[in-house]
Amino acid sequence: MKLRRRLSEIFFPDDPLHAFKDDQTWFRKLVLVLQFLFPVFKWAPNYSLKLLKSDVVSGLTIASLAIPQGISYAKLANLPPIIGLYSSFVPPLIYSVLGSSRHLAVGPVSIASLVMGTMLSDTVSCTNDPILYLKLAFTATFFAGLFQASLGFLRLGFMIDFLSKATLVGFMAGAAVIVSLQQLKGLLGIVHFTTKMQLVPVLSSVYHHKHEWSWQTIVMGVGFLVLLLTTRKISMRKPKLFWISAAAPLASVVLSTVLVLCLKSKVLDIKTIGHLPKGLNPPSSNMLYFHGPHLALAIKTGIITGILSLTEGIAVGRTFASLKNYQVDGNKEMMAIGLMNMAGSCSSCYVTTGSFSRSAVNYNAGAQTVVSNIIMASAVLITLSFLMPLFYYTPNLILAAIIITAVIGLIDYQAAYKLWKVDKLDFLACLCSFLGVLFISVPIGLAIAVGVSVFKIMLHVTRPNTGVLGNIPGTKIYRNVSRYREAVRVPNFIIITIEAPLYFANSTYLQERILRWIREEEEWLASNKRESIKCVILDMTAVTAIDTSGLDTISELRKTLERRSLKLVLANPVASVMEKLQRSKILESFGLEGLYLTVGEAVDDISSSWKARP
Amino acid sequence: MKLRRRLSEIFFPDDPLHAFKDDQTWFRKLVLVLQFLFPVFKWAPNYSLKLLKSDVVSGLTIASLAIPQGISYAKLANLPPIIGLYSSFVPPLIYSVLGSSRHLAVGPVSIASLVMGTMLSDTVSCTNDPILYLKLAFTATFFAGLFQASLGFLRLGFMIDFLSKATLVGFMAGAAVIVSLQQLKGLLGIVHFTTKMQLVPVLSSVYHHKHEWSWQTIVMGVGFLVLLLTTRKISMRKPKLFWISAAAPLASVVLSTVLVLCLKSKVLDIKTIGHLPKGLNPPSSNMLYFHGPHLALAIKTGIITGILSLTEGIAVGRTFASLKNYQVDGNKEMMAIGLMNMAGSCSSCYVTTGSFSRSAVNYNAGAQTVVSNIIMASAVLITLSFLMPLFYYTPNLILAAIIITAVIGLIDYQAAYKLWKVDKLDFLACLCSFLGVLFISVPIGLAIAVGVSVFKIMLHVTRPNTGVLGNIPGTKIYRNVSRYREAVRVPNFIIITIEAPLYFANSTYLQERILRWIREEEEWLASNKRESIKCVILDMTAVTAIDTSGLDTISELRKTLERRSLKLVLANPVASVMEKLQRSKILESFGLEGLYLTVGEAVDDISSSWKARP
Repeated sequence: MKLRRRLSEIFFPDDPLHAFKDDQTWFRKLVLVLQFLFPVFKWAPNYSLKLLKSDVVSGLTIASLAIPQGISYAKLANLPPIIGLYSSFVPPLIYSVLGSSRHLAVGPVSIASLVMGTMLSDTVSCTNDPILYLKLAFTATFFAGLFQASLGFLRLGFMIDFLSKATLVGFMAGAAVIVSLQQLKGLLGIVHFTTKMQLVPVLSSVYHHKHEWSWQTIVMGVGFLVLLLTTRKISMRKPKLFWISAAAPLASVVLSTVLVLCLKSKVLDIKTIGHLPKGLNPPSSNMLYFHGPHLALAIKTGIITGILSLTEGIAVGRTFASLKNYQVDGNKEMMAIGLMNMAGSCSSCYVTTGSFSRSAVNYNAGAQTVVSNIIMASAVLITLSFLMPLFYYTPNLILAAIIITAVIGLIDYQAAYKLWKVDKLDFLACLCSFLGVLFISVPIGLAIAVGVSVFKIMLHVTRPNTGVLGNIPGTKIYRNVSRYREAVRVPNFIIITIEAPLYFANSTYLQERILRWIREEEEWLASNKRESIKCVILDMTAVTAIDTSGLDTISELRKTLERRSLKLVLANPVASVMEKLQRSKILESFGLEGLYLTVGEAVDDISSSWKARP
Repeated sequence: MKLRRRLSEIFFPDDPLHAFKDDQTWFRKLVLVLQFLFPVFKWAPNYSLKLLKSDVVSGLTIASLAIPQGISYAKLANLPPIIGLYSSFVPPLIYSVLGSSRHLAVGPVSIASLVMGTMLSDTVSCTNDPILYLKLAFTATFFAGLFQASLGFLRLGFMIDFLSKATLVGFMAGAAVIVSLQQLKGLLGIVHFTTKMQLVPVLSSVYHHKHEWSWQTIVMGVGFLVLLLTTRKISMRKPKLFWISAAAPLASVVLSTVLVLCLKSKVLDIKTIGHLPKGLNPPSSNMLYFHGPHLALAIKTGIITGILSLTEGIAVGRTFASLKNYQVDGNKEMMAIGLMNMAGSCSSCYVTTGSFSRSAVNYNAGAQTVVSNIIMASAVLITLSFLMPLFYYTPNLILAAIIITAVIGLIDYQAAYKLWKVDKLDFLACLCSFLGVLFISVPIGLAIAVGVSVFKIMLHVTRPNTGVLGNIPGTKIYRNVSRYREAVRVPNFIIITIEAPLYFANSTYLQERILRWIREEEEWLASNKRESIKCVILDMTAVTAIDTSGLDTISELRKTLERRSLKLVLANPVASVMEKLQRSKILESFGLEGLYLTVGEAVDDISSSWKARP
């Protein structure tokens, strides 16, 4: 029974079935089940023309952003540009049925594209063996979806919480720098470029291919980049003008395509996208790759891109949900994103999730429900069916400029500065993941980031705070003497507080530290010729849990102090600790006089007992 | 300044230099430095003839145990038996100068021997390439020593605390089972035996080599095993008779050797140790192997055996130190053990540490100082110089019997039962490491054990306890309503306590869980037609730390509740949390009325302000 409650706290903290009550009719229950599985049933009955109007506006706005970004991000993942458009069509439709966020704009995102591109290119060349590369990309997408859906289904959503915000800030900034530098290929018109993703090879590649630089490309590329960055700046200054930056990418694509078309007889060395096939997503379930030498790579890539895209999707969903004051269920959302990716992998899509930049535009454009995703998908449908030949003359440089503009926002130096100011260790985690991504590799940078975060927790657990308490005169309140100047020590007592659960990882430390507190106090008392200590009180208020090593520590400490004829008393152990003390029979050795509800009670009772028999 | 204090708490919790004061003369300081570096200077000046007498008795007692065990453990590590004797000579001498424990009996131990044997045999065969195997063993010993000494020097001793007692119980029991089964080779007289260490191959090897079983070996082996186990039982029942089990191994060796010698003309198929070279440890620094294909294996083996032997040595030292009420400095002890192993690797010794069984005998035999180690080493010296030919006819079966008797004590089923009763998760960790060692492999079993321990900490951190507090009538004390029946909820308030640091790993969970507490309370109040909640008080007493994600959570929670026109108030944040709240400027958004010293104060103040302006 107790175990069951504990398990339900671990796996069902949000009590997902709380809407179900015993006194409901079976029809009501059926409706609830449907609403639970398909959130679309929750809002569809109340959908109105007014809502539709806002959704159409916002849907078209994000479509104008999604089409150029889709093409660009696919190139970032070393995939054919058309895959980016396919991925902006099927997944949004699936999400609109399963997803519970109203503002998420679904599609390919930069970080996941980058990581997939890096990890697959390390082993398989996308130019020498494009079919295998494509197969691996779809397979990785399938495993990413499977992993995401299982995390949600097994209610292990808390796994993504291990990517702390601090490490994500560093990771994203590092990835953004790398991606931006990689785009120099497009902006400078370099043909032979490294496929590596570290800072050093990318910069040396830029430098060593100076002779390939094309001045026409540079002029045009830098021009559009400045234009895009300016519109971004304007929209950031005045959020009401969000549409300027939202419309800028599509406008730039059109403008640059027209420019190239007009100038093509004169300038020949600007590279363009070229032919894109017309038509909707072809099925790709036959492309999934379930045995062979690269399966491990596909699974690994899938899991890492899965975690990253999940982190982004959930974070975006939660952000906008809290702005509009509704709840997003993390585990259900994971299942939605996972199923969407699994379906995507069978219809020529690669990893997709909720994009932060497009969701922000969606929100600002007044989106009310996921219908905006359907509108966006319809716009992509029209593009795929009729407009593909128009992209023939779109120059690659504009894609590079769009990517740089999109990722530059990921460098959040203000957040890093705030980390530095508030918490030095968090800043260290941030810096480690930034440098790890920049100089080693994306997956290792991520591993370092997680490692530092976990190490930080461990450090707190292994080296918890302890302190000596003193009485605040005139009250029964006891506070740490090193923090509250008015607190005074009680003669004959030393009251030690432990501010952490007592675990195997800190039990040795705590035992030694407590003995050191006592030794230091005794030395001080002796040198000042005061009465020595007779009783040690352990304030257990903040000891929120204890394990068997901790129990041993308490019992050993009592024996050690007894040999030095000091009395050990526990004050205010919490209920779960109390229970374990009882079950391990340590409490018996303490006797009735070894346990008090509060520190004040212990001090009063023990000192009066001394007076009674001096 | 604050960072410095924090770092000194992390790395120097025991304040190792506390004996040094500013007002000492330089001579006194020199003495203290010497005493600090070489504990021998601490006790040598007060050494007396009486102490020497006890030390001689205990030293000879452990020597009689160390010689047969040394030979047996070397065989366990697939090393020539003589290495075991070498390892019982040099390391005890070095430890007696550097070590700070008075009762540690130094020499080879079963677990480290087993692990070294397993890990090296996986790659290099000790029969086909004995020289390389020996080289790798010495190199692994060198790295074990280097690793141990650096842990001590860098004051990272807390790393070994991550092997919790629960996992060690399981690990040791698993290893003991495997080792005992392996000894069936010697006890049954099997010649062709598997070198694998898992349960299944060992048992199948025993079964498939039935035709090699030798009845003479079995009769003699089982006879001596029963004898040894009986003496062990007697000594365990009556600790005063410790000398029976201490003398039994040497007596059995002598007896069995004489038996084989007498019967050698009649029974020929009992395998004996054979020729052992006479003389002291040859230098082996030329055998160290610092480049080549197996270096990584040597380093890995060194680190794992280093950790294991360190864990045993430190634990043994601490146990007897606490029995005799003196302190053992973990980090200095690590340096001593590390230097001893590094020196050992250059003088034909393999990994040594303080052995639990021999230290217990040493303690019971009345050892007073490390001089007993010197006496033991002298006894080994005499053996090495003159008595080696006597071992020619010692049968292998007696070594097997000695090993089984030694390791059977590692199976601590009572401890396992206690774990089951007190803490189910600790028992799970224990079981995992037991089964991991038994069915997979020793290093993986160890990895599983550490993994489970760390996961347990993580689980506690990611899913901390929360609860609703109520007032205990007639007092100002607030306690969890689900644990204290007398606690009653205060109308219009919900007081929520968080029993853990607020970290990135639990901030999302806590936010959702707090909102759920509020939702459930509101639903209950609504269905019972009571007044609804107006104010949420967070009791922060047990929130011992906060990071940037935690700060964001608090601030988001405040905004969310504000939108639902609920007031959020913090009660009793500890000083370090308070400071971070201030630095991140979240406190300003709470204003003066958002923070109280105690829950009681918050309730009184806020409810009186409501009465003032209704």
